[in-house]
Amino acid sequence: MATGNLDKQKTIDLRKKHVGPSCKVFFSHDPIKIVRARGQYMYNEKDEKYLDCINNVAHVGHCHPDVVEAGAKQMELLNTNSRFLHDNLVLYAQRLQATLPEKLSVCYFVNSGSEANDLALRLAWQYTGHKDIITLENAYHGHVSSLIDISPYKFHQMAVAEPSQHVHVIAAFIAESLQSCGGQVIPPVGYFQKVAQHVRNAGGVFIADEVQVGFGRVGTHFWGFQLQGEDFVPDIVTMGKPIGNGHPMSCVITTREVAESFMSSGMEYFNTFGGNPVSCAIGLAVLDVIEKEDLQGNALHIGSYLTQLLDDLKKRHLLVGDVRGRGLFIGLDLVRNRDKRTPATAEAQDVIYRLKEQRILLSADGPHRNVLKFKPPMCFSREDAELVVEKIDQILTDLEKTLGLQMSEAVISENGHTKRKEPSDENGLVHPSNGSSHSHKHTVTLPHDKKTNKRQKT
Amino acid sequence: MATGNLDKQKTIDLRKKHVGPSCKVFFSHDPIKIVRARGQYMYNEKDEKYLDCINNVAHVGHCHPDVVEAGAKQMELLNTNSRFLHDNLVLYAQRLQATLPEKLSVCYFVNSGSEANDLALRLAWQYTGHKDIITLENAYHGHVSSLIDISPYKFHQMAVAEPSQHVHVIAAFIAESLQSCGGQVIPPVGYFQKVAQHVRNAGGVFIADEVQVGFGRVGTHFWGFQLQGEDFVPDIVTMGKPIGNGHPMSCVITTREVAESFMSSGMEYFNTFGGNPVSCAIGLAVLDVIEKEDLQGNALHIGSYLTQLLDDLKKRHLLVGDVRGRGLFIGLDLVRNRDKRTPATAEAQDVIYRLKEQRILLSADGPHRNVLKFKPPMCFSREDAELVVEKIDQILTDLEKTLGLQMSEAVISENGHTKRKEPSDENGLVHPSNGSSHSHKHTVTLPHDKKTNKRQKT
Repeated sequence: MATGNLDKQKTIDLRKKHVGPSCKVFFSHDPIKIVRARGQYMYNEKDEKYLDCINNVAHVGHCHPDVVEAGAKQMELLNTNSRFLHDNLVLYAQRLQATLPEKLSVCYFVNSGSEANDLALRLAWQYTGHKDIITLENAYHGHVSSLIDISPYKFHQMAVAEPSQHVHVIAAFIAESLQSCGGQVIPPVGYFQKVAQHVRNAGGVFIADEVQVGFGRVGTHFWGFQLQGEDFVPDIVTMGKPIGNGHPMSCVITTREVAESFMSSGMEYFNTFGGNPVSCAIGLAVLDVIEKEDLQGNALHIGSYLTQLLDDLKKRHLLVGDVRGRGLFIGLDLVRNRDKRTPATAEAQDVIYRLKEQRILLSADGPHRNVLKFKPPMCFSREDAELVVEKIDQILTDLEKTLGLQMSEAVISENGHTKRKEPSDENGLVHPSNGSSHSHKHTVTLPHDKKTNKRQKT
Repeated sequence: MATGNLDKQKTIDLRKKHVGPSCKVFFSHDPIKIVRARGQYMYNEKDEKYLDCINNVAHVGHCHPDVVEAGAKQMELLNTNSRFLHDNLVLYAQRLQATLPEKLSVCYFVNSGSEANDLALRLAWQYTGHKDIITLENAYHGHVSSLIDISPYKFHQMAVAEPSQHVHVIAAFIAESLQSCGGQVIPPVGYFQKVAQHVRNAGGVFIADEVQVGFGRVGTHFWGFQLQGEDFVPDIVTMGKPIGNGHPMSCVITTREVAESFMSSGMEYFNTFGGNPVSCAIGLAVLDVIEKEDLQGNALHIGSYLTQLLDDLKKRHLLVGDVRGRGLFIGLDLVRNRDKRTPATAEAQDVIYRLKEQRILLSADGPHRNVLKFKPPMCFSREDAELVVEKIDQILTDLEKTLGLQMSEAVISENGHTKRKEPSDENGLVHPSNGSSHSHKHTVTLPHDKKTNKRQKT
């Protein structure tokens, strides 16, 4: 078992000396040094175990052996660029295409979500002949310069916010299928269809950014945009984070028309690392694991279960303003006042720091940093869900005591102790959880369903 | 030994169907399918061996076992983002810094040369408060939209060339330390100092793009900009391609002043995959191999030897207009007329296609695509150099016969059969090659020096 070689303080000192100060660590006052990870668990230099509720990049579980093996084998054999023919490239493109509507058939492989979104803009500019981009308030689409222009989440952070003139922060044109950094915002069904209609009438295209929410995380569907209904097909889809379980890779998929138009510019597209055989082998292995371990199904079931547990918290804690999400992509919106919806920013930070002391990793996001974000590895289990909710329950109770925020006994009795609705899957099938009412005040003691646990090979 | 699973035609068909048509293959009429590679050799689906003279990304040799092992081991243990402390990140930053002037001390880890150059522009914009970028004619700095604006090599390819208004194609501000795609152009010593003086007087910074030429390739120095002399220190250095021997990673290194200014914008910099422990483990292993196998020394010696062989070609072939380069970064400029310097574009293509038939991979670049580019893996040997030059010699002889281009016997006797100057290293030490004059007309039969061969572990 490897542990860090450097004393933790030495690691911190070297980082201060040689790593850009704009690159922040989690928990800046006492950052965590992680030396190994497996499944949904991470281990620090003392081999203390943390439950990981935030690393959506480690999609099929940290260091999944199938993914590691696929990568290592291909690294040993060949890693070169896409100017040579290779089966991994075409088989992977074919496999990704199969998860999408037929029209979305042409792939470009790149190295990061930012590269993917930048290329999506280039495709759109070339195809439409226009330059204007419509983006959502609080959107985040990446860190390269073209994307900061269309990411209010980023440019509002600047001392002098200076949106580019060709960008209008109005409605949608490029949008995450479910907004992540913006605070886990779920668009109403039918919204994208209407936006797409307006955008297309104006000569534009619809770009669905699936960098954070794709690959089965929403549970009922493989892609977030599919939540909008079968009739909705974006013109361009961008993928990232989970695609390679941590390996730097990403993809843009578009229609034949957009792709042909891009070629007609006369400019070749070459990406040195994009679509290399190692990245494609890893991408294929990730798809295999999602299928073999039915991780989309797990996201649906555990996600529904976690949502229910959080809904229960809302009934007992005034600090909880909203619970929203799909599958294993859930936001717990904390507010100081439910009517005024005053963001409970400091309280959210407090929850996160206290969870960290109990070795649970959670983060807050949204414009006011008051939305607790759940986006764990997809092998997250019922016990994991119960543990994190139990701890949040205790922390909220403490916080509300301090703040003098307490629901009347009547409200608790009315809301808090009702029988929870059982989680159901995409076919409406109920998954009984062997008894479902709370027995004590602030501790959520919940039944287990062993079947859905331990999906992760160890 | 793995071979491709799909019939080659099937691979081509699937590629046409699912991969962006702007993504070109080498030798589009009959592309090569490579299934494995080792050192400076690549193997097709029939296990036929190709000598690789072009893949500078496979810097320490394709699939170097030390690099593969480092990557595989770390993938198994942990692959996560830089918000957690990790020793690999800081040790790698420290190690890279040690190769550079002391002032360049702060690193940002990203995933590609394009991301690196885009970040370099952001650093420069923030630090200087200005927006104008000066770039070199025929420069290429990457494929993301901000970089196409400053890459005449790319934007001149467009049907409607439309340089952005904030870009002036004049002299230098961002420049490759040796221009690669632009046609292996070597700036005169002292040029960067003068440019930097003007740029800094105008409130700007100097960005040295080492994506193609860094990491010892120039032989005498570890970085291309160091060829300009000890007194030259860029404000920002960007790295890419060879940094991870094919693994998608790159880095930007700058001064404390520029880094602090970037932080003062208030905008955090987070890159999902950048600086992950796997990338850093691989980066460290690449540096180890360069050192352990003295690949910089090999680039110097074999590079000098190859340059001499090519200089000899120039003496015997009118088609050769110029031989230029440093270390294992060499351009052979083909011209139809030496006085008028008419680019021999078709002839360069012919050479490349004929070499391919003999299983040698070479490419042409430059604004007229008439410069044969040598940038092989750094384990390239004397025999490799001799083989490729011998083949080029034969092809040029054939081409010149067809074109009616022939040097007079007098010129050949005067120029072609003179004793070659022995290659010398950075200390002026001569490396004898056991006899050094040609004996026959068009075949370069050259002595071997076993010591510098087989640097690559197999």
